[in-house]
Amino acid sequence: MPSLIETQTKDDKKKIAVCGAGLVGCLAACYFAERNYDVTLYEYRSDIRKMKVVVGRSINMAMSVRGREGLKRINAEEAITSKGIEMYTRMLHDTKGNMTSVPYGKSSQCILSIDRRYLNELLLNEAEKYPNVTLEFNHKVKKCNTNTGEIIFENTSTGQEVKINSDLVVGCDGSYSAVRQSLFKDKPVNFSQNYNSGYYSELRIPPLNGTFALPEKHLHIWPRGDFMLIALPNQDFSFTCTLFMPLEMFDKLNSAERVIDFFQEYFVDAMNLIGKESLVEMYFSTRPSPLISIKCDPHHGKKCVLFGDSAHAIVPFYGQGMNCAFEDVVVFFEILDSMGFDNIDRVLEKYSHTRVPDAHAICELAVRNYDEMKYLVTTRGYKLRKKLDNFLNFLFPSSWVPLYTMVTFSRMRYSDVIDARKKQDKIIRTTTWITCLSMMAVFGFYIYKSRSNFSNINNFFKILRK
Amino acid sequence: MPSLIETQTKDDKKKIAVCGAGLVGCLAACYFAERNYDVTLYEYRSDIRKMKVVVGRSINMAMSVRGREGLKRINAEEAITSKGIEMYTRMLHDTKGNMTSVPYGKSSQCILSIDRRYLNELLLNEAEKYPNVTLEFNHKVKKCNTNTGEIIFENTSTGQEVKINSDLVVGCDGSYSAVRQSLFKDKPVNFSQNYNSGYYSELRIPPLNGTFALPEKHLHIWPRGDFMLIALPNQDFSFTCTLFMPLEMFDKLNSAERVIDFFQEYFVDAMNLIGKESLVEMYFSTRPSPLISIKCDPHHGKKCVLFGDSAHAIVPFYGQGMNCAFEDVVVFFEILDSMGFDNIDRVLEKYSHTRVPDAHAICELAVRNYDEMKYLVTTRGYKLRKKLDNFLNFLFPSSWVPLYTMVTFSRMRYSDVIDARKKQDKIIRTTTWITCLSMMAVFGFYIYKSRSNFSNINNFFKILRK
Repeated sequence: MPSLIETQTKDDKKKIAVCGAGLVGCLAACYFAERNYDVTLYEYRSDIRKMKVVVGRSINMAMSVRGREGLKRINAEEAITSKGIEMYTRMLHDTKGNMTSVPYGKSSQCILSIDRRYLNELLLNEAEKYPNVTLEFNHKVKKCNTNTGEIIFENTSTGQEVKINSDLVVGCDGSYSAVRQSLFKDKPVNFSQNYNSGYYSELRIPPLNGTFALPEKHLHIWPRGDFMLIALPNQDFSFTCTLFMPLEMFDKLNSAERVIDFFQEYFVDAMNLIGKESLVEMYFSTRPSPLISIKCDPHHGKKCVLFGDSAHAIVPFYGQGMNCAFEDVVVFFEILDSMGFDNIDRVLEKYSHTRVPDAHAICELAVRNYDEMKYLVTTRGYKLRKKLDNFLNFLFPSSWVPLYTMVTFSRMRYSDVIDARKKQDKIIRTTTWITCLSMMAVFGFYIYKSRSNFSNINNFFKILRK
Repeated sequence: MPSLIETQTKDDKKKIAVCGAGLVGCLAACYFAERNYDVTLYEYRSDIRKMKVVVGRSINMAMSVRGREGLKRINAEEAITSKGIEMYTRMLHDTKGNMTSVPYGKSSQCILSIDRRYLNELLLNEAEKYPNVTLEFNHKVKKCNTNTGEIIFENTSTGQEVKINSDLVVGCDGSYSAVRQSLFKDKPVNFSQNYNSGYYSELRIPPLNGTFALPEKHLHIWPRGDFMLIALPNQDFSFTCTLFMPLEMFDKLNSAERVIDFFQEYFVDAMNLIGKESLVEMYFSTRPSPLISIKCDPHHGKKCVLFGDSAHAIVPFYGQGMNCAFEDVVVFFEILDSMGFDNIDRVLEKYSHTRVPDAHAICELAVRNYDEMKYLVTTRGYKLRKKLDNFLNFLFPSSWVPLYTMVTFSRMRYSDVIDARKKQDKIIRTTTWITCLSMMAVFGFYIYKSRSNFSNINNFFKILRK
C-alpha cells in the first residue's frame, strides 16, 4: 500500500507533530512516516518501555477487524496479534456460577484480548523503526494554535517551555485532550462529554495451578442488571476483571465485610478465584474511575486533526475504542492519499464530514450495548433474536448480518450499521404483523366458510394442535 | 430581606471569590456582601467605567420579571429599570415595510430594553458601595482548585501570578469560563456546547430628526425564514439591530453590492433608516459571532458554584440569558439562606439539583423560540394559537397561562413551564379530536335517521352552509 502513495521529497518534507504516544498516536506516526513526512511524536509521560508501573487505565483491549486493518497497513498485524488471546464467545455466569456460552459470530470469528501496555510498547517500537520519526517524551502540550500549527510544550523533566512549528498537529492525546481544548479557542466546535454510564474498577483473577482459572477462549460476563463484572484473559494466564457499577454502589461497599457479602451474593465464583483477601485489597487500593462518552464535531481545525479518544471517547462496552481509533487513521489516510497534502484543507474537511457521523454512531452503539450486556444477554427475547439473526444470516449471508458482526467483524461504516439494524428491526416488525394478520385472515375465512357448521371451528383448532 | 438572613460575624467571615465582574458577577457580589461575607470581585478586563470602547458582545438586554426580581432583592430595581425602554409588543416587518404588532402579554406587561454596558456600570457601582467588597481588575483566572478554593490569577497589568485562597469560588466568567474548565479537572461534569444556531452581527439605526426612527415601545422583528433581523431601542434614540443568519449566508454577502441587494430584497425599510453607506461600513467592520448553547451538570464543585453563562449559555431568542442568570443568584441565596454556609456542601448539592433542570429547559426553549421568531410569527397557525391562548387565559387566568408569559412575566420554574406547555398542547389536541369525532357522530346519526330520505342529507348541508 504505502509504495503507491504520494510521499514527501526531502526538500519539501512537511512537519507532522503527533501529540500523544498512546496506541493511536504511535499508529498515526507510523502512517505518516511510511509516506516520508518529517514526524515527531510527543508524549507527556516518560517512555513506558522503561517504566516499572504505568499509571492510568489498563482495561484490556479487545481487538477486532477494524483495529487489525489499521495494523495490517503498516505490516504490523501479525507481530501484534500473535500475542493476543482469541475469544470466541461471551461466557455468561449466573449467580450460582453456572456458565452459558453465546458465540460472537461464526465459529471461526473471534476478538483478541491484548494488554494495553504490551500493545503500546510494540507500537512504540514500530514507530521508532522509521528514521523519519523522532520520539520526544516528557513533553506536555500546554497550548497550541490550530490555525498556524504552533505548539507550546512544557518539558516536564526540565520545566522549560518548548515552542515548535508544524504543518499539521495530530491530536492523539486522549479523552482530556489539550489539543482539542486549543481547537475550541480557534473555531466553533460542537462538543459533549457525558458521564452517565457509571464507574469502573479493576480486579485480577490470578492463574490457577499454572494455567487459566477459567476457560480462556471467552470474554466472561457476570450480568447483574444495574452492574456487571467482566473478565478478559492475559498472556500470563491471569484474567483482568472489570467491575462496572454506579458510583453510589461503589460508595456503599465501604467495608471489607460488605465487599465480601456483595461478591458472595452476585459473583461468588469470581470471588473464589480472586481470593477474599486479594479482592478486598484490590477493591480498596484504587478509587473507581468514571466512564466518559465524548462527541465532537468537527474533528479538525485549519492545521489540526483529532484521532481516537480526543475526538470521540467511547464507553468500552463494544470493545471499539481502540478499533475505532485505528480506523480513524485508516480513513484519514484513504482521503489524504487520494487528495494529497497540497489539498490539506479539503482533506481535513472531508475527513470530518466522513468520520463525525461514524464516531457519533459508535458512541451511541457502545452505550446501548452496555444495557445489552447488563440486562439483555440473560433475557429470552435477546437469545431468540440472536438465533433469528443467525438463521437469517445463514439464509442471506450478505444481506442479513447480525449487529455485533457488522460492528466487530466488518469495516462497514458505523452509521450504516445503525441504519442496517433499523431496517432489520423494521422487517422483523412488519413480518410479525403480516404473519399475525394472515393467520387472523385464514382463521376468519375458515370461520366464514364453515359458519353454518359450528363444530368445524373445533376441527380447526384440532388441526392446529396437531 | 437581607436583615432576616444569617450574616457573617467579623471573626468568622468567609472569603468569597467572585470571578467575573460582568452582570451576574456584580449581582452575586452584592448578594454576598449584603450577608456580610468578605467578597472580592475579580475581573480580567480593566474597569469598564473608565474605558472608551468596550470590546465584546453588546446585544441589548431585554429585562423581564426574573431579572427584576434579582435586582429588587438588593434594592436596585428602581435605579436600573428607570433607565430601560419599555417594549410592549413584537413589531413584525414584512418585506414591503408594513408593520403588524403582536403583544407580549397583557396590555400592561412589557420587557425592558437596557444597554449591557450601562447596566454593567450601574451594577459595578452597586457592588462598590459595600465596604466588604473589593474590586480587582486585570485579574485573569489561570486555573483554580474547586476542591480547596485556591485560585491562580494572572495580573494582566504586571504579568505576575497571584495566588489566593477562598471559601467559595463563584464562577461568573461567561460562556468560555476558566472556572468551569478547572471544575472539569476536579470532578466528572456532564457538559455540552452547541453552535447550531448560526451567527449574528450588529448594526445600528441612528436617531431620525432627534427622535426614534421607528416606534420605540416595541421589539422590532423582520422574520425571514432562515434568517432574521431584530431591533431594540436605546436611550439615545437609536436602535441596536442584530442580524441572525447562518455563516454561509454571511460569507456569501462579500461585497457592498451584494449586501445592499440583500437588504433591498429583505429589509428595505431597515436599510433606508440605517443608510446604505453606514450599513456597508458596519457590516464589514466586524466578523459575525457564533451563537452558543451550553449545558452543564452539575453547576457546582466542592467549593465552587457557577452562575450565568458559565453554567448555561443560552441563545438570545427568549431574552432570558441575563434574566436566568440573575435568577440563578436568587435561587442560590434562597437555599443558602435557609441552610446556612456551615452546610455549604448540601447547599451546593441542592442548588445544582434545583437549577440544572431549569437551565436545561430554558436552553431548549430559547432554541425553539428562534424557530418561532424566524418562521412562525408570520404563519396563521401561530397567530391563531396566540389568540386561543389569550382567550383561554382570559377564561382561566390562573390555570391557562401562555408560554411566553410563563417564561417572561412569571418566576415559574422553566422546567415547569415546559411541562405546563405540554399539558396545554395535549388538551388542545384532545379537544380538537373530540370536537371532530363529535361532529362526525352527529353527522353520522343524522344520515342514519334520514337514510330512507336521501334528500335530507342535502338539507343537512344546507343548514351547515347557513
